[in-house]
Amino acid sequence: MNDPIISHQQLKSFAYQLFIKIGCPADQAELATTSLLRADLRGIDSHGVARLSGYVRLWEAKRVNSKPSIKIVHESPSTAVVDGDAGLGLVVAPKAMDIAIAKAKNAGTGWVAVKNSNHFGIAGHHAMMALPHDMIGMAMTNASPLVAPTFSVERLLGTNPIAVAIPADKQPPFVADFATTTAANGKLEILQRKEKDAPIGWIQKKDGSPSLNPNELKDGGALIPLGSDREHGSHKGFCLGAWVDIFSAVLSGANYGPWVPPFVSFLAPPSDPVGEGIGHFFGAMRIDAFRPADEFKKHMDNWITRFREAKTIKGEEKLIIPGDPEREFEEDRMKNGIPINEKVIADLKELGKKFDIEF
Amino acid sequence: MNDPIISHQQLKSFAYQLFIKIGCPADQAELATTSLLRADLRGIDSHGVARLSGYVRLWEAKRVNSKPSIKIVHESPSTAVVDGDAGLGLVVAPKAMDIAIAKAKNAGTGWVAVKNSNHFGIAGHHAMMALPHDMIGMAMTNASPLVAPTFSVERLLGTNPIAVAIPADKQPPFVADFATTTAANGKLEILQRKEKDAPIGWIQKKDGSPSLNPNELKDGGALIPLGSDREHGSHKGFCLGAWVDIFSAVLSGANYGPWVPPFVSFLAPPSDPVGEGIGHFFGAMRIDAFRPADEFKKHMDNWITRFREAKTIKGEEKLIIPGDPEREFEEDRMKNGIPINEKVIADLKELGKKFDIEF
Repeated sequence: MNDPIISHQQLKSFAYQLFIKIGCPADQAELATTSLLRADLRGIDSHGVARLSGYVRLWEAKRVNSKPSIKIVHESPSTAVVDGDAGLGLVVAPKAMDIAIAKAKNAGTGWVAVKNSNHFGIAGHHAMMALPHDMIGMAMTNASPLVAPTFSVERLLGTNPIAVAIPADKQPPFVADFATTTAANGKLEILQRKEKDAPIGWIQKKDGSPSLNPNELKDGGALIPLGSDREHGSHKGFCLGAWVDIFSAVLSGANYGPWVPPFVSFLAPPSDPVGEGIGHFFGAMRIDAFRPADEFKKHMDNWITRFREAKTIKGEEKLIIPGDPEREFEEDRMKNGIPINEKVIADLKELGKKFDIEF
Repeated sequence: MNDPIISHQQLKSFAYQLFIKIGCPADQAELATTSLLRADLRGIDSHGVARLSGYVRLWEAKRVNSKPSIKIVHESPSTAVVDGDAGLGLVVAPKAMDIAIAKAKNAGTGWVAVKNSNHFGIAGHHAMMALPHDMIGMAMTNASPLVAPTFSVERLLGTNPIAVAIPADKQPPFVADFATTTAANGKLEILQRKEKDAPIGWIQKKDGSPSLNPNELKDGGALIPLGSDREHGSHKGFCLGAWVDIFSAVLSGANYGPWVPPFVSFLAPPSDPVGEGIGHFFGAMRIDAFRPADEFKKHMDNWITRFREAKTIKGEEKLIIPGDPEREFEEDRMKNGIPINEKVIADLKELGKKFDIEF
């Protein structure tokens, strides 16, 4: 029943070779591999090597450019707009985040909106790039429309995640990384595999009534914004998803809302685009543009320690600090390997055969 | 049964005179009045003149300084830290937002963290100050600890609201302004007045079990982060509230988490402060630091129109664009006056008598 364990090194080598085979320059293949594997390491299995075949199909459909010329098309001292040239988001995102960090070095903060990109893996990875620079990092992206805003039966937004990474001193960093829906799409995939029902409040049917069926989206259903229903604040989840969509795409000139191209290659992008590709938004804030970094990080230690030691509800061992579970996954999986689902293994073997890469 | 209607002008005149009586300089009394009344106009009755007596009590307790010297204590091209000198948040916040806007004019964006402040009214008002400059505005603040993070029985965070205001062309602006909890504290006050139960998922008892009692906080209970429970993403609501707390207070040097001083004057602030007063965080982003403002605003019109016209669930007339309900309130109340609860009227009369102001 247990999934086979594959070493991080083996998966990395495979992914790197695959990116090279589809034509990525070596430095970009390296970036894409690092972004991708970070998801598997951090336990977000839906966003790691499980997506490789999807990326390849998008490349085959000529919707991903493996040799993009990624460039700044507009800028100010603290901002830039980047054209991803239809590259892999896995490559475009870290390059854009580098620009945000460089801007922050000079202007105190850096904010980069990206157009003409593709799925960028996990938001947390990009936000965390700011940490070694004693900066706060932020990353968000829009995504294929799977979410119905409060009162809507139409799917108008993606699961539009937000990540915020904040450095501490002796404590590990605070890393929040979450879809702005009640549950991310990856959670539905797990239920589909296990043939289990979803909790009420995650999904609605195509007429907007509640559904427990994790396959409901195939029948016109939709995911629901964080909050689950109006009475429990789903309009706030809608605000969050909308904010991410507007920052990522209306600021940059990408497609927004229902115009975002679908991730799956068998669904054609809308014929009336309102922009180019999908959009992301990144931020980097130099801590010492506000107060000395050492002072800040000591207070972060105090913040984290106080929350970690909070008295908990009976039966719950501890309060979870954002980033704790993913860091524990990362430490374990780096050392002991990564469990990969049988279906994903079959997928990778198929890719290996097709591109003549040993797996 | 209906609340008496008072004109905006009358309330404004009363609040202004009161701020003068407690010693505010004329320009600051003007700012405070505008911030305060905006809440009543926009239908957020809990944050308007209903809070006047609370502000006065904090001034009497010497926790609010009516003649603050508000100044920048640290800055970079795109950032500043402002010391509010224990002033009214209603005054400190618009002054800090002005600095963010000035920074954005030069650097593309401006980000201002504020320490040593007090309750700032509604976040949306401050964020909206960016709109006439063709900028996106953001405002957040921490607040007295009333919220238990997921799995905690302790109250460690405030309802920590976030506001994002985004300009459009012919459409009214997009204005999201929401507490990062399932329900704001003001919603409980309404239920208390009506002697009604709260929905499940809003409140927990002091042992962390669910409660329907809107008075539960008086007995050690707590509000719950957006998401209501772990299964429905309350850990994401906790991430949001924590993010607001850290940006507002750890970046600025204010009190954070459980150390935030209570709003009510009869509860003493913690004896072991970790910073000064409460904290806010403001942002202004010049649209044309990303793309031409006209182009952006036309796309915002398209975004808003598409969402507004979405097909809705049976029984729901339309999808609500963030900011729509508050704008409708504002238009109506500016013209027709503002309904004020009897208890609030009694409060204002009391204040009028005490400070010799006609009401």
